[in-house]
Amino acid sequence: MTIFGIDPGFAIVGFGFIESDGMRSREIRHGAIRTPAHTPMAERLQSIYEDMCVLLEAYRPDAAAIEELFFNTNITTGIQVAQARGIILLACQNHHVPIFEYTPLQVKQAVVGYGRAEKRQVMEMTKVLLNLSAIPKPDDAADALAVALCHAQASTSLLSDYTR
Amino acid sequence: MTIFGIDPGFAIVGFGFIESDGMRSREIRHGAIRTPAHTPMAERLQSIYEDMCVLLEAYRPDAAAIEELFFNTNITTGIQVAQARGIILLACQNHHVPIFEYTPLQVKQAVVGYGRAEKRQVMEMTKVLLNLSAIPKPDDAADALAVALCHAQASTSLLSDYTR
Repeated sequence: MTIFGIDPGFAIVGFGFIESDGMRSREIRHGAIRTPAHTPMAERLQSIYEDMCVLLEAYRPDAAAIEELFFNTNITTGIQVAQARGIILLACQNHHVPIFEYTPLQVKQAVVGYGRAEKRQVMEMTKVLLNLSAIPKPDDAADALAVALCHAQASTSLLSDYTR
Repeated sequence: MTIFGIDPGFAIVGFGFIESDGMRSREIRHGAIRTPAHTPMAERLQSIYEDMCVLLEAYRPDAAAIEELFFNTNITTGIQVAQARGIILLACQNHHVPIFEYTPLQVKQAVVGYGRAEKRQVMEMTKVLLNLSAIPKPDDAADALAVALCHAQASTSLLSDYTR
């Protein structure tokens, strides 16, 4: 199945598509949607929506995996990221793509094996698990691939639950 | 001009349309978009988007006025409201309706005349200014009419600036 991993943002949305049979995963494409600074937020949201639609139509994923949002430092940025995340969910929903949400803890647990892993370790393991020659760039795309891998693993566990 | 006031939310989006010549305003319609609880967020966002489109197409407003978001108590709720707010901005943008954002302070200042007004006072003044027989229900619709009135007043000030 094709999994669409997404790292939400309003200036940059990281994305990564992987193909996974539950046991092994390979990368199809990764990259980032960028929106121009100093542009009204509604225009940036519109451009994210349009680019999301292009990707959804090009790769027709079976599932979308996206991180849950946590606010730490900057509330204003957090609000803007959440607005963009709403747009991303809408695009997936309008394309009938089921959405799965994971906490950063779940992603780290799935990719590295323990929840307190460093960001760098997650990226290294993402590279290894997808058999890539280098850590994907930008970081947002690497994060998106990690959450896609997390879903690949979660789907397998679910499958083994069902077939037990 | 027709102004579309919006009070963003994910369970309930208050809305109010007013017609204003800058001096006087009258209410065209008010109400609320509601989304069912215990439904995946992406479905709720989709239903908000669709209802927004119906309203935008029915009333073809010249401007949308929406409150800026501030987080006070619950961050999780705040994230969800911000996601819905993103959808609302997208719907307006996709219908080429210019969006104007106001702080709660600006709304109170415009409607009651001072920024520390109580919520109740804002509602009373909204009723008076629109010559309504009662305070609009639900509260979210009253808030939406208040932000629409705020824009009506702001546009007038802007106009007088231009024509000075």
